[in-house]
Amino acid sequence: VQGTILIIDGVATNRIMLKVQLSSAYYRVIQAEGLDGILSLVRRSRPDLIIAAMTLPDGDATAIRSLLAPDESLRAIPIIAVTGQNDRASRLRALASGIDDVLSQPVGDRILQARIRSLISMRNSTDDLRLRDGTSRALGFAEPVSEFVAPAQIALVTREARTGTLWRTELKGHVSHHLRPYRLDELGGLVSRSHAADVIVIEVSEDPDDPGLRLLVDLRSRFNTRHAAIIAVPSTADYHLAADALDRGAHDTMPLGFCAEELSLRLATQLQRKAQSDKLRKTVRDGLRAAVLDPMTGLYNRRYAIPQLSKIALLAEESNKNFAVMLLDLDHFKLINDRFGHPAGDAVLTETAARLQALMRPDDLIARVGGEEFMIVMQNTDTTAAVTAAERVCRTINSKPYHLNGHKTPIDVTTSVGVVVGPTLPFATQHCAREKRTEDLIGQADRALYESKGAGRNQVTLIGSAA
Amino acid sequence: VQGTILIIDGVATNRIMLKVQLSSAYYRVIQAEGLDGILSLVRRSRPDLIIAAMTLPDGDATAIRSLLAPDESLRAIPIIAVTGQNDRASRLRALASGIDDVLSQPVGDRILQARIRSLISMRNSTDDLRLRDGTSRALGFAEPVSEFVAPAQIALVTREARTGTLWRTELKGHVSHHLRPYRLDELGGLVSRSHAADVIVIEVSEDPDDPGLRLLVDLRSRFNTRHAAIIAVPSTADYHLAADALDRGAHDTMPLGFCAEELSLRLATQLQRKAQSDKLRKTVRDGLRAAVLDPMTGLYNRRYAIPQLSKIALLAEESNKNFAVMLLDLDHFKLINDRFGHPAGDAVLTETAARLQALMRPDDLIARVGGEEFMIVMQNTDTTAAVTAAERVCRTINSKPYHLNGHKTPIDVTTSVGVVVGPTLPFATQHCAREKRTEDLIGQADRALYESKGAGRNQVTLIGSAA
Repeated sequence: VQGTILIIDGVATNRIMLKVQLSSAYYRVIQAEGLDGILSLVRRSRPDLIIAAMTLPDGDATAIRSLLAPDESLRAIPIIAVTGQNDRASRLRALASGIDDVLSQPVGDRILQARIRSLISMRNSTDDLRLRDGTSRALGFAEPVSEFVAPAQIALVTREARTGTLWRTELKGHVSHHLRPYRLDELGGLVSRSHAADVIVIEVSEDPDDPGLRLLVDLRSRFNTRHAAIIAVPSTADYHLAADALDRGAHDTMPLGFCAEELSLRLATQLQRKAQSDKLRKTVRDGLRAAVLDPMTGLYNRRYAIPQLSKIALLAEESNKNFAVMLLDLDHFKLINDRFGHPAGDAVLTETAARLQALMRPDDLIARVGGEEFMIVMQNTDTTAAVTAAERVCRTINSKPYHLNGHKTPIDVTTSVGVVVGPTLPFATQHCAREKRTEDLIGQADRALYESKGAGRNQVTLIGSAA
Repeated sequence: VQGTILIIDGVATNRIMLKVQLSSAYYRVIQAEGLDGILSLVRRSRPDLIIAAMTLPDGDATAIRSLLAPDESLRAIPIIAVTGQNDRASRLRALASGIDDVLSQPVGDRILQARIRSLISMRNSTDDLRLRDGTSRALGFAEPVSEFVAPAQIALVTREARTGTLWRTELKGHVSHHLRPYRLDELGGLVSRSHAADVIVIEVSEDPDDPGLRLLVDLRSRFNTRHAAIIAVPSTADYHLAADALDRGAHDTMPLGFCAEELSLRLATQLQRKAQSDKLRKTVRDGLRAAVLDPMTGLYNRRYAIPQLSKIALLAEESNKNFAVMLLDLDHFKLINDRFGHPAGDAVLTETAARLQALMRPDDLIARVGGEEFMIVMQNTDTTAAVTAAERVCRTINSKPYHLNGHKTPIDVTTSVGVVVGPTLPFATQHCAREKRTEDLIGQADRALYESKGAGRNQVTLIGSAA
């Protein structure tokens, strides 16, 4: 997959010049003359970036973002506008419409390439996590990110203290964020405190002794600032310096230097982008956690419980300590489903999970390993303690009938329990058989459980004993 | 959390000088005089990076990596060695021992800071995915990455074609990888083909017109090369240029210029690091997919099925088409578990899943939504087709007894099915009630299922009909 760039320009020579520039940098180029039919063209060709002339035969580049908006998957395509006269008013209008940057004709190769690289690379990094549609939906990736509302933390990093003070004063009229100036040589507060900044605006200059560009890289590498958005502001208008800043990892830059109104628009864009990438990271973490939880009860699932039991067994053998494995199976659960319906059955499982969590120690592993089957693993637990705990488990289910929503009469529930106390094999048995031995442990607990069932249910059976 | 750096040096003045240098860059510094007790010091203080004098009172920096090896969590801490005379032999020995870089005394601030930033930032990016211990284990994050064995694809990117040819010739004696030279101005093959390179070695020079540094950034941003490891080689010894390359995203650099033996060691390190980050990405994707799959049968789980059903119902309403929801519950499943044991019950579930997958169309959604309960959703399916399909489902279970491992006599299994055909509500009903309506759909299918059970099992019941 090569990077694909869509050029929209009514003037053929402009398109041709830009196409030459981009093709020599190994981008695939497609072209359009104006806005007409742009949504379907973008749908078909899926460009990674759009470069559009500010003035088009049938309108103006500021219309593009809203033309793409109906299709969720196209909403975030980066857009660069190219204009003959880069006047402030039209630049601000373009940024306000959702265009990522405005460059003047003739477009300098350095800044154009740097901007393209930066925008495409931010896009690729989120694409790494693109999942199949249904998986995304199930895990919440498809949910829209809400607009950033709370005032954000904005750090203004400048060489001279008075520049920072000036920036703050000018910005205050445009944004309601918390604005905090730092001197370039005093960044301790920024890198040592967590959540000191959502966006870092940093002054850079051509002076080879100026640490701005290097500190920019530094802030991207630090634990506390690595997720902050960084906007590099050249101390005077300088396209090369702006390009350098993008190449070193700045998320955005203002090649023409500080302008409060322009910065406020760029801040809004960066805050939105950051909210999106924060949410993406959180969704990944939540999704991975979800992979080990039973959705109905919130207990761990079998996928988590089996390797965890293996590890606990191994640790216990190595440290010569006891541990207990309990298998529980609710008695006559099928009858509950048949008599009261599935929602009632589900409520019984959820209530059982809650009772087990309230009863057990925080360190005990509690998992739902089958329909109405639960597993509890207790570390540092000998036979006496295990049997006591198992009897408590029986009682916490059978001593209090279950009150279910929509059912007047509470339901009596009981459970059968099978217990095995390990280690069932002496320490120093070969590690290679670990998987098989975890199976054996569960098999023993299962046999104990079936003895409880056979002996009339609602009781505890202990099988075997520690080696 | 600030970056913590451990300095190991027997000479107090060296430690003090380095400490001043690092503290002014806002790193937290801890110190040791030699190797004695280093494992427990590192365990306690968890540094993000270690800087050690090459020669130590009680040994040599090359021992550090193996001293840390017993603790898996410390194995990957980056190490920089500092040496009085940076001779080639000791540098090679250090790199071979697993040290990331060797710098000469006095240590230049630019290259030191750039190297620290680069090493710490690679570390932080993997830490973003650090999960709770048990979760990692269950999802396979904890499994060690095997050594890179297959010959890798190495791209040698140089300004002049003959430099590339020379590098290849010299490297050939040291590595068995596929070595392919590219000219700096001819990178089309590298960026347009997927998996053209595992590692890209790129020549950079001080010449302001040299595109090396910029192409380095470019390669990091491109879809096909963004996961490749990049090693920047200054055309002549140049610490500043090496620092610049690291700041622009190179993973490694050889400040003293090309040396085949040194490059072969650095290639090995980078290939290992890349294997690790490739595996991390794969584990994340697998973990997220696992979150929507039932571990036992490999079918989708409830977490996936419910939102997917919602979406199918919505699409069907919008396009005025029919869809069918089937709920299946295996008859007397409890008896199978009780009579033949849990492993046999599990085998029946797995075999049922396989039969359903073989029977249904690829577009049909098949999920295990409860212990022995399955859901099938069929798009573009009217009442007649739905009932035909449901009857086929019944037959695919009851027409052929289940042969289970370890059981001589095959087991007869039957299933009851409830079917509902939608849309059950006319198009244009308010979207806000979507969740409730998905519940209603399932509720109706559930009632149909219970009618099948009540009427003697092993049969299909259709309830309601499309609006």
